[in-house]
Amino acid sequence: MIAAGATSVGIIASKDPRFDQESGSPPMEPFQGPHQGGIASDQQAYALFLACDLAKSGKEHLRELLDVWSAVAAEITAGNPPPQPAGLTPGFSADTDVGAGLDPARLTVTFGLGPGVFGDGMGLDSQRPKHLRPLPEFLGDTLNPAWSDGDVLVQICADDAQVVSHAFRALRARMPGLARMRWTQYGFLSRPAAGGTPRNLLGHKDGTVNPRPGTAEFNRSVWVDSVDEPAWFHGGSYLVFRKIRMKTADWDQLPLAEQDRIIGRQRADGAPLGGVDEFDAVDLQARASDGEPVIPKNAHIRLVHGFAMLRRSYNYDYGTLIANAGGTPDPVPVPPHVHASDTPAHAHGGHSQLDTGLLFAAYMNDPPAQFIAAQRALANDPLNGLIQHTGSAIFAMPSGCAKGEPIAKVLTD
Amino acid sequence: MIAAGATSVGIIASKDPRFDQESGSPPMEPFQGPHQGGIASDQQAYALFLACDLAKSGKEHLRELLDVWSAVAAEITAGNPPPQPAGLTPGFSADTDVGAGLDPARLTVTFGLGPGVFGDGMGLDSQRPKHLRPLPEFLGDTLNPAWSDGDVLVQICADDAQVVSHAFRALRARMPGLARMRWTQYGFLSRPAAGGTPRNLLGHKDGTVNPRPGTAEFNRSVWVDSVDEPAWFHGGSYLVFRKIRMKTADWDQLPLAEQDRIIGRQRADGAPLGGVDEFDAVDLQARASDGEPVIPKNAHIRLVHGFAMLRRSYNYDYGTLIANAGGTPDPVPVPPHVHASDTPAHAHGGHSQLDTGLLFAAYMNDPPAQFIAAQRALANDPLNGLIQHTGSAIFAMPSGCAKGEPIAKVLTD
Repeated sequence: MIAAGATSVGIIASKDPRFDQESGSPPMEPFQGPHQGGIASDQQAYALFLACDLAKSGKEHLRELLDVWSAVAAEITAGNPPPQPAGLTPGFSADTDVGAGLDPARLTVTFGLGPGVFGDGMGLDSQRPKHLRPLPEFLGDTLNPAWSDGDVLVQICADDAQVVSHAFRALRARMPGLARMRWTQYGFLSRPAAGGTPRNLLGHKDGTVNPRPGTAEFNRSVWVDSVDEPAWFHGGSYLVFRKIRMKTADWDQLPLAEQDRIIGRQRADGAPLGGVDEFDAVDLQARASDGEPVIPKNAHIRLVHGFAMLRRSYNYDYGTLIANAGGTPDPVPVPPHVHASDTPAHAHGGHSQLDTGLLFAAYMNDPPAQFIAAQRALANDPLNGLIQHTGSAIFAMPSGCAKGEPIAKVLTD
Repeated sequence: MIAAGATSVGIIASKDPRFDQESGSPPMEPFQGPHQGGIASDQQAYALFLACDLAKSGKEHLRELLDVWSAVAAEITAGNPPPQPAGLTPGFSADTDVGAGLDPARLTVTFGLGPGVFGDGMGLDSQRPKHLRPLPEFLGDTLNPAWSDGDVLVQICADDAQVVSHAFRALRARMPGLARMRWTQYGFLSRPAAGGTPRNLLGHKDGTVNPRPGTAEFNRSVWVDSVDEPAWFHGGSYLVFRKIRMKTADWDQLPLAEQDRIIGRQRADGAPLGGVDEFDAVDLQARASDGEPVIPKNAHIRLVHGFAMLRRSYNYDYGTLIANAGGTPDPVPVPPHVHASDTPAHAHGGHSQLDTGLLFAAYMNDPPAQFIAAQRALANDPLNGLIQHTGSAIFAMPSGCAKGEPIAKVLTD
């Protein structure tokens, strides 16, 4: 296993095909390679995050799932129909034609393993990534278990929502008997016509200080290569996922200058307060003529300054879809003696009307020192009154795979 | 009012700018014109349907809503920020910057009026469109009131989901005191790279026989110009909206040949059974060597043959979003004495797990002779076992407006 790990890491520095592309936007993203696609890849416009639980314990069942899913992903990311399942009755079609005629639109399918994969009965205890434990509870969390956790994650991204839907359908057709759907989340992220940093639903540019793929900072903060981590996980990354609802109606009623002071940047152009350009260095020492810091003491960018990680988040806007869903879901049923209007806010997922915000998705190699420390540093962030964390999960995203091999082969061999 | 109506209709035939475009895909769609945008416009890739109820009775309140919304729509469809509301406190921003830097992406905002607008206390009884009555119940309907009906509809379409979300945000900022959100639905529809008819989530090409804008058939079946209709409505159209869930897991387990017999067309290329090309005439008389009709007796295309209307539907894929929403919505609360697991299927919107299907949206000028007759003709459609109608609504979509004027000005004057 050490040899395989070392080979994988060796390739990273020398010939990752995605780093050879100056243009940065190939129409197709390779499924095979030293790293999984969908991490260092330029962010696509649409995403689906799908979490599921394994139907049966034992690493052989995980292997079976990753075998069939890797085979499907390898074909559909290349613009081909999914492979015929073994034993398919003649006359049945392995594809749905939902994506027929559409470009692959830079489709990526990225797999992750949750803490449960290394739990009882799996036979993988000794292979658990060092930091793959459920995240601690943070101040103000209003998490809904229906939108949290999961044994296996699939991140599906493409520049076309129908391509994403088609990929989802192809993958879930292989789940029965192997995995049960746990939650899905859909997002979008549009890049300005002139290029540059996309905006979140607070209207702010989001991702200005992201490490750039191929740089030393990116390799240092995103890819796992520590000797403290199991060899199979080298070349992988941790994904921290948080469903963050934004109280946009409250936000929109703040004066622009107050919004800017909460973030520490100008909404219009993304420049840090006191600067003139989006990419100006953040000067945390600068003081105004009244002696107050130009970037306020509790400004969001001050509080998280220095915590490097790759944020690859998506905006979501479900409107009243969830408020109007109807029915009581299995995981958080309303007890029979409680009247609907008396149910606690978290039974509504933290909100009872509009649901819009950020599917925060961040890749890193040391969650305690990166996400967890940053999130604790945000304890007094005035933004906390304007957002709600309603879902939470962490996954170990294995390294990439070679042609004809499944994701996490070394782990499940 | 008659003069205004006649003028409006007169312009239709001669100089609708959208019909002068050979290319069919301008990056911007005009908000003003004899007809509203978003009907004859080439279908965009993303859509949001938003229904709301008026907060106060009286046509003056409807006018106020349409005044502010038309002013917002006129600006944002042109790629501008929404206008400053009167009396906005200095320092507050009328825009959210969520769409800053993005192209308008052929954004259209199309307004419609539900039956309630012509009900008690509105003062518009004499102006009710002839066919604007709630749709009858159809065999097999499993409608959820949370996803049905509404006083005012807004159809927001663009080739960019973030542009749609931005438009939604700009419009709902003007709703407080005037209208209450009722339901929202999000859809997508991707056009094949090589052009041609898009596919629905059964994998079939959908829209092959749609009337083409600018043709006599289109004008005959879509735009209202009957002397039986009130003058203010001339140049408008009816919109029938149905949320149709597809049982895709069941569908995907049918042999391809059976799928094709249910629809009456070949999934692969859209050709009618017995034909070779998508646009071949449908031969309902053709018989196979065994004497059976080539297009089966109950094939979907046979049952709806001859019912012309403009289907401008969108695919939707909510995954498990609704199943996992949590909480019991206001419109259909679970009575305190009923245990959650005993609630009837319709309280779950007809489904408890995956929710994916079609946001059926069809424009027509005679709903009883078009949608209602077609839907009744489908009573024995074998497709009925594979779909569920879970939402339903009908709206009168007024004609377009002139620069500086609101939609439905003549009605609300």
